[in-house]
Order: sequence, then C-alpha cells, then structure tokens
Amino acid sequence: MRPGCDVSEPLRLHVVGTGLIGTSIGLAASAAGYDVTLEDPSPTALALACDLQAGRRRADGEPDPDLVVVAAPPDVAADVVGAQLRRFADATVTDVASVKRVIETELAAAGADLGRYVGSHPMAGRERSGAIAARSDLFIGRPWVVVTHDRLQPQRRAQVEALAAATGGVVASMPAEEHDSAVAAVSHLPQIAASLVASRLRDLPPDSVALAGQGLRDVTRIAASDPALWTQILVGNAAALRAVLGEVTRDLQAVIGALELIGDDPDSLAPGARHTIAAAIADGNAGHALIPGKHGASPTTYAGLTVLMPDRPGGLARLFDHIGRAGVNVEDVRIEHEVGRAVGIVELDVLPAALEPLRAALRERGWQVQD
Amino acid sequence: MRPGCDVSEPLRLHVVGTGLIGTSIGLAASAAGYDVTLEDPSPTALALACDLQAGRRRADGEPDPDLVVVAAPPDVAADVVGAQLRRFADATVTDVASVKRVIETELAAAGADLGRYVGSHPMAGRERSGAIAARSDLFIGRPWVVVTHDRLQPQRRAQVEALAAATGGVVASMPAEEHDSAVAAVSHLPQIAASLVASRLRDLPPDSVALAGQGLRDVTRIAASDPALWTQILVGNAAALRAVLGEVTRDLQAVIGALELIGDDPDSLAPGARHTIAAAIADGNAGHALIPGKHGASPTTYAGLTVLMPDRPGGLARLFDHIGRAGVNVEDVRIEHEVGRAVGIVELDVLPAALEPLRAALRERGWQVQD
Repeated sequence: MRPGCDVSEPLRLHVVGTGLIGTSIGLAASAAGYDVTLEDPSPTALALACDLQAGRRRADGEPDPDLVVVAAPPDVAADVVGAQLRRFADATVTDVASVKRVIETELAAAGADLGRYVGSHPMAGRERSGAIAARSDLFIGRPWVVVTHDRLQPQRRAQVEALAAATGGVVASMPAEEHDSAVAAVSHLPQIAASLVASRLRDLPPDSVALAGQGLRDVTRIAASDPALWTQILVGNAAALRAVLGEVTRDLQAVIGALELIGDDPDSLAPGARHTIAAAIADGNAGHALIPGKHGASPTTYAGLTVLMPDRPGGLARLFDHIGRAGVNVEDVRIEHEVGRAVGIVELDVLPAALEPLRAALRERGWQVQD
Repeated sequence: MRPGCDVSEPLRLHVVGTGLIGTSIGLAASAAGYDVTLEDPSPTALALACDLQAGRRRADGEPDPDLVVVAAPPDVAADVVGAQLRRFADATVTDVASVKRVIETELAAAGADLGRYVGSHPMAGRERSGAIAARSDLFIGRPWVVVTHDRLQPQRRAQVEALAAATGGVVASMPAEEHDSAVAAVSHLPQIAASLVASRLRDLPPDSVALAGQGLRDVTRIAASDPALWTQILVGNAAALRAVLGEVTRDLQAVIGALELIGDDPDSLAPGARHTIAAAIADGNAGHALIPGKHGASPTTYAGLTVLMPDRPGGLARLFDHIGRAGVNVEDVRIEHEVGRAVGIVELDVLPAALEPLRAALRERGWQVQD
C-alpha cells in the first residue's frame, strides 16, 4: 500500500463491473481526481462505460491499483473479490453488494487475505440499470456503509471511506451482521410488505380497487420493483431477513388472534383483544418516530398546509412563486389527485413558525387554503 | 317521504354527531342549499358546529327532516341509526361509518325499518378530529360509497347519492360485504402493514435506523395514525380483515419457507425457493398496476425527471416557475432529502411526451437534471 503522504500522483482506482453502480463510482471518482481504470466481462458494457468517461481500460504492465471496487452482481461478488485480492497482492479490495455477511464468510472459507478486504454498501440505486443509467451524483447525500471486521487493516478502511466521501456519500461504519440486520428491517422488509399488500389487490373487483386512497398508494409504491433483482437481494440476506420476518409473523398472528376473539361481534368484550390491536398500532407510532428527519437531524414535526388547485399547466409554478415571495421554505410537498375530479390537493410541509404567515400570504393571493 | 318534484322548499337534512365528518357534511350541504339542522350529545361540540355555520339547532315542533345523517363513532352507529329511524317515521337515515355489514346486521336483528336505511361511507378524513377541523371541501373528489341492499327503497338511495354529489363526492355503489372486503384490502391492511414494519425499527440501533431511505418512509408514512381510532375501525371490520390477513400470512409464510430452504447459503440450489420469492414480488407488480391513475383514469405511466436542488427558500418557486414557462404540467412531485446533506432531490412525474422538452428547458436555465 502506498503511504498516504504520497500525493505526487493520483490514487489508482480499478472498478470491476461497469453496471449502474460501478460506472457511477467511476464517474464520481474521476471527477474527484482518482485515476480510474475499468473492467467488465461484457466488452459492450465496458466500451459504454469508457465512452461515458467513467474511466479507461487498464493497459498491460501498468502499476497495480491502490484500490479495487468490485461492483459485480451479489451472487458472484465473493468470487470476484477473492480473484482481485489474489491478482493485486498489495491492493485494498472493496465490494458494493447489498448484503455483507455471506461475502465475508465465503472469503474467509476460501482463505482470502481478509486484512485487505473492506465490505461496503453505497445505499443508492435507481429504477433503471446498466452503465447508461449511471450518474456521477448518484451517491450524494446517501448513506455509504463501510463494514468493520477484526482482521481489517485500519488504513484499508480509511481508503474506502475516503472514496465514499469523495463521491458525496455519507459514511456509516458497522459490522456485517449489523448491516445485514439493518437492511433486512429498513429495506428488505418494506419491499416484502409492499409487495404482499399490493398482491391482494388482484382479488378485488375494479370498483373496490377504485376506493384506493393515498395511504395505499404510499404503502405500495415500491411494489413496482424488479422481481429478478429483488430475488437476488432477498436470497443473499436470507438469515437476517428470516429473523425479522419471523417477528412480523408473530405480530401479525397476534392481530389475527385478537380479531378472532372479536369474532363477528364488534361489541364483543373479548378480554385483551382491543389492547393487542391498539398496541400494534402504538408500537408502529413508536417505530415511525425513530426515522431520522431530513439532513440527518432528529425527527422534526413540520406543520402541514393544504391548498386546492386546478390541475393545469402553470398552477404549481404560480403556487410556488407565491410561496417563494412569502419567504417560506417548503420542507416537503405531496400532490394528491382523487378519482373523478380534475382538482389537485397540494399538501405542503413547512416549519411550524412559517405556517400562519404562509396561510395568510396564500389566501391574500386568492388560493383556497384549508383552515 | 316528500315527492322529488316538490321543489318549493329546500330539503331538510338533520346531522346527528358534529365531529369532523358530521360538521363537514353540514358545511358542504348548507353551501349546496340544504336546510341543515344539527344535534350532538355534547353541548360544546354542538355549539361549535353551529358557530361554524354548519347548520342550526332543531326547534321544537318543526317538521321532520327528509334525510338524517348519523355521524357517530362506529361502535354506537347502529344504535343511533335505529333510534333515528324510530324517531322520524318517514325520513331516510344514512350513516357514515367506515364499516358497513355489522351495522346492517345489527339493525336487521333489532327489527329496524331497513327500507329507509342507507349505509354510506364518505372516504375522506383528516389527521385531526372534531368540528374545529371540519372543512366544506372535505369530500371533493373523494369516493363516497353508497351501500345497496335488498330491502332498500331506490328513491332513498337516490337521496343519499344526491347528498354525496352535492358535497363534491364521487358516488360508488356496492353491497356491504363488498365494501367491507374492499376497505379491508385498500385501507385496513395497508395500515397494519405500515404499523408492523415501523414497529420493527424499535429493535434497531440508531445507526441502523439512519440507513432508512425513501422506500421505508413511503411504506411507513401512515404508521403515525391514532391507535384508539384505528382499533375501533379494525374491530368493526374483524371478519373481512381476518380473511385478507389470512391470505397475507399464507404469502408471508411461503416467503419465509423459501428463505429457510436457502438456509445460510445464497448459492443453494433449493428447488422452487427462488421462484417463490420472485413470484411474491411479481404478484405485487401485478397488484400495483391495478391501482387507478389520477382523475379516475386507468393507470398511466408517467416519465420521471430528477432535479438536484439546494434546499433553501425560493428554490422550488424558481424550479416551478421554469417548469411553468416550459408549458409542462407536473403530474406528481416528490422531494427527497438525504441524511447529512443540505441538498434536495426533486423527482417530477410528467407525461412521457413532455419529458425531453422539460429536461432541455431546465438544463438551459442551469438546473442539474439527471440523464
């Protein structure tokens, strides 16, 4: 490993796998001054990534890279990491797969030099895949997990953290087990929940599905995800995912048991049934309150303002123009359209102190604002 | 019942229960020309609704109402409907509770005059409750279910449909069982799913919860709902809800079974396991595609455009001003803020044909727009 004080030439970064993530890392690292070389089993994918200026092909006989990023599909990531550790005897090797423990375990079983392996997971992605969808800004503001383990040399980890920071990512350090449990709960479970809820709509008559409101739309938005990719992700995190799904099953069966006690009589005094149901909702309140607010701050309560708006070009422009003139920053905005009406409902979240001035300012300009 | 051709005086509407829904109906019906009287067991709630001009108190000896709306809590709705049917011998009586079959069943068991009872469910609400939160526009564009049943006199149903339409609601007719199954799937199941997913966050270290992305935020947004109200709602729909939760349990156990087959080895060739998981995600795709698009149209695929934006006052105003000048109508907008960065990511949905012109127009004005 070259000493950190050797600033005479840029760090050499080699990216193996020029799909969405690998190419995006190449773009971001090139922009940050790394000397980036690229490699992919598909000549077409490699040529495209080079054309996009994510890096260049490695030439025969050029010096070994300082850092190798393996951005291969999760099911081959461990093999590719092992091969790169053997190929470049002094390089740090990292990967970007969305599950971490199985890769560490496979490498240990294969006798790999774990002191130079740093598992990582930039938590960014897009609904589209491939180099063509790559963006240099893909990682800006997103968590980038860097996995810690006993045999890892600290300066190796620092190299990966520096790369993460150079791409705009926000570094989070944790052991592989903690990472896998975390993504099981914050990413894989929500995907399964959304898919199973959406799946039930297939049994309903169209008139019934038409009763869908914003709640259903929010819960099922990610149900449109790609089955092939998600099967790989979920299979790769089978152990941690089974644990959290087991807990959800336990909670679900408690709710079903309480509803069975109620039977067909909502006036039933079935002991404990109402408490079980209320506790399930209240525990959800408590969990929801833990989700960090924007910009990493602790959860902030914003004040909501609802504005009615005719749904035609320029309406939002006029609205936000008037909001801007009132000097108010909008923290969040949702547009709700309801079945059968060409009127939109715009929900604005603002800091509580800005609520009344904004309400007054919008009314003055003729907007229909709720009380 | 007064004949429909008697237009010499306004229809007399009596609202029993001046909470959020009852008071909002009073406001909307008054605006639509109904002669609205109000009643509530709480003198304070009644006085407030009268002050808000949602209607007036009934005077002694005044003529019976044509239509009574019972807007009482779900657990007493059937009793109050029965009492109003007995009190006003020729009036049509409707209720607004979010579950319908149990009320019909209780009324039938009590020997009520079902020919004059019309169950209904305006699918509108707010996060706040009480008359003080009432709005005359609460029902605009929202589905308002009017329940059909064998013994109902058709002209009674027409009265309730006319009221729903007068408040701006979109009438949907269906039997009580179909309504209850529908809301179990499109409203009650999403609530339980959101609560159970959010609940699991309580077990995570803060560093892990910090990995939350937009998917988790969408899935758990409604997990902040009120436990007491939701317990009443879920208990009132116990039978239909048990049915759909049973199906979800079956699907969930299939996924868990597949993950158990995989064991700790993601390279396991466990027969059928990957297919089970992929099918769960694919079934979710199919269900999600059934959710109606905006304005009651069939689902439309919009094209997405992502814009990076500094998070400060006036940013959105400038952006929407530029969008408006480009003559493009924004169908949906989401603002995503990520932990640790004061930069917002704005995702715009537009009609596919508007995508490229909008991208070009925004770039020309200096916006950072993704490819």
